[in-house]
Amino acid sequence: MKSVAEYREAFQEYLDLKMQVRKPENLYEPMKYILGLGGKRLRPVLVLMATDIFEADYRKALDAALAIEVFHNFSLVHDDIMDDAPLRRGQETVHERWDINTGILSGDAMLINAYQLFENYEGETFKELARLFTKTAIQVCEGQQYDIDFETRDDVAIEDYIRMIEFKTAVLVGASLQMGAIVAGTSTQCKEAVYEFGRLLGIAFQLQDDYLDAFGDPETFGKQPGGDIIENKKTFLYLTALETSGASEAQQLEHLYTINPAETSGKIEAVKNLFESSGAAELTRQEIEKYTNKAFDVLDKIEIAEEKKIPLRQFGEMLMNRKV
Amino acid sequence: MKSVAEYREAFQEYLDLKMQVRKPENLYEPMKYILGLGGKRLRPVLVLMATDIFEADYRKALDAALAIEVFHNFSLVHDDIMDDAPLRRGQETVHERWDINTGILSGDAMLINAYQLFENYEGETFKELARLFTKTAIQVCEGQQYDIDFETRDDVAIEDYIRMIEFKTAVLVGASLQMGAIVAGTSTQCKEAVYEFGRLLGIAFQLQDDYLDAFGDPETFGKQPGGDIIENKKTFLYLTALETSGASEAQQLEHLYTINPAETSGKIEAVKNLFESSGAAELTRQEIEKYTNKAFDVLDKIEIAEEKKIPLRQFGEMLMNRKV
Repeated sequence: MKSVAEYREAFQEYLDLKMQVRKPENLYEPMKYILGLGGKRLRPVLVLMATDIFEADYRKALDAALAIEVFHNFSLVHDDIMDDAPLRRGQETVHERWDINTGILSGDAMLINAYQLFENYEGETFKELARLFTKTAIQVCEGQQYDIDFETRDDVAIEDYIRMIEFKTAVLVGASLQMGAIVAGTSTQCKEAVYEFGRLLGIAFQLQDDYLDAFGDPETFGKQPGGDIIENKKTFLYLTALETSGASEAQQLEHLYTINPAETSGKIEAVKNLFESSGAAELTRQEIEKYTNKAFDVLDKIEIAEEKKIPLRQFGEMLMNRKV
Repeated sequence: MKSVAEYREAFQEYLDLKMQVRKPENLYEPMKYILGLGGKRLRPVLVLMATDIFEADYRKALDAALAIEVFHNFSLVHDDIMDDAPLRRGQETVHERWDINTGILSGDAMLINAYQLFENYEGETFKELARLFTKTAIQVCEGQQYDIDFETRDDVAIEDYIRMIEFKTAVLVGASLQMGAIVAGTSTQCKEAVYEFGRLLGIAFQLQDDYLDAFGDPETFGKQPGGDIIENKKTFLYLTALETSGASEAQQLEHLYTINPAETSGKIEAVKNLFESSGAAELTRQEIEKYTNKAFDVLDKIEIAEEKKIPLRQFGEMLMNRKV
């Protein structure tokens, strides 16, 4: 088996080969641009890794891996429009560099292009990949809608939040692994188990993302922490703090989430203090560990040789120990 | 075989049955809304009709017909955002009634939902439908991009324009018919021929749409004619007039296409006069007839009983004799 870096390199090579700009250029240039901005390529690496784990040549899975990455980037392009985000990976977003219409239309073409990439698989494999992809893509849209809805709702329960991040982030991690398993033609049981491993790890991953957004080290986190607090995002930290705080602290926290000061550092500090004093920070760390352990339990039970599980376990540990 | 009205009714019944609003409502409510605005349902009717023509029960094609209609409405929702259009079928557009983000996201979900509807077909049929759908959907995006590009280009050739309307409109007409043929499991030759019939008819249909936009009877056309002229759209009429006019008239026409007067009737009249005097109006009528006849020639050669061709011929004649 290869290392994460080697899978990533193999994927990158394939991406470069496939991302030729066709005509009309204004449709395909933004596609090449966003896919060229890089990123960790976590999802395609997982597709390739899973194919290898279930005893098939990972190169058979390059088109499925590319489909997942193209879809992920489609969702970034459309989400960035919805969030009015100027930057993505430190570069201009597509709608900033071109315009909103270009972002909408080239995003649409990317979504369709993802389906096109599955056509390189035979009959039943094609159908299985396309079905899984469709189910996942619909859930990602539903997750995004819940995320938007939460902005204006004041009755978001913690389980609603978990379901939102499950749909918006985690199901695509599960689907990436399951796609590798489908390409490898493994058993239904293995396909389901590896999906479940990815889904649980994906939830842990997103919870940790939220945690790092508040408590990450600015030196290593890559972006200025506190973004979610500035935007009054109802994250797991916030919802848990509301639940565990006394009445006066809860009121204080709710108040802080109604103000949008120009100078943000005071607000960030005050909110973080409440996250700590309420015990929400600690509870979030426990929740991350809970989902990570659940994921590893599922991995333990997959009926493949123990040595095959090592890269998935390493990958999970790498994600959970990251500072970025 | 059934009449167009009967197919439409059967389709409408199926649509009403399937368009249940799921959660999150803000994602699915706009989908139900736009699909509930009505319209002629030309594309789904063609899917059902083609299934019947090629000797299968049209009810087998209801999901494919719905997929085509959902896709068509997805493209309307996103196009209306791009065109900043306030009205669709006399009602508020989705992004007007809700907002742009809702239009983007529910449009995305509709595109994915179209693929989902094909899952009700078995292995090879599923793949054939999904492949045709993907090819067509990509072309529709490319057509929309060309349309946008033409707004700022001053070197649009007539053949560029024909290709644009082929992609933006005609291929979906061809695909609708071919989907019916696929569901019926007819021969490759029949599948290709019926696609070609639809593609040619679709080009004639769009040319006629452009013609009616300028020369349609305001009494029967349903909307105020002259919209394309007000928006300086480089239609077949305009591009042909530029080519057939003398230097002075061409210059006059080009000038008229740079002004945007508040009171539009004078401009509309002047442009229409140039369309007539240059011979472009007559040439456009000839071009519509040419594509219609080409379509009927293709229909003549399809190897099915003559009586089966009658509804397609009637449908073509109905489209070409319409005043709306």
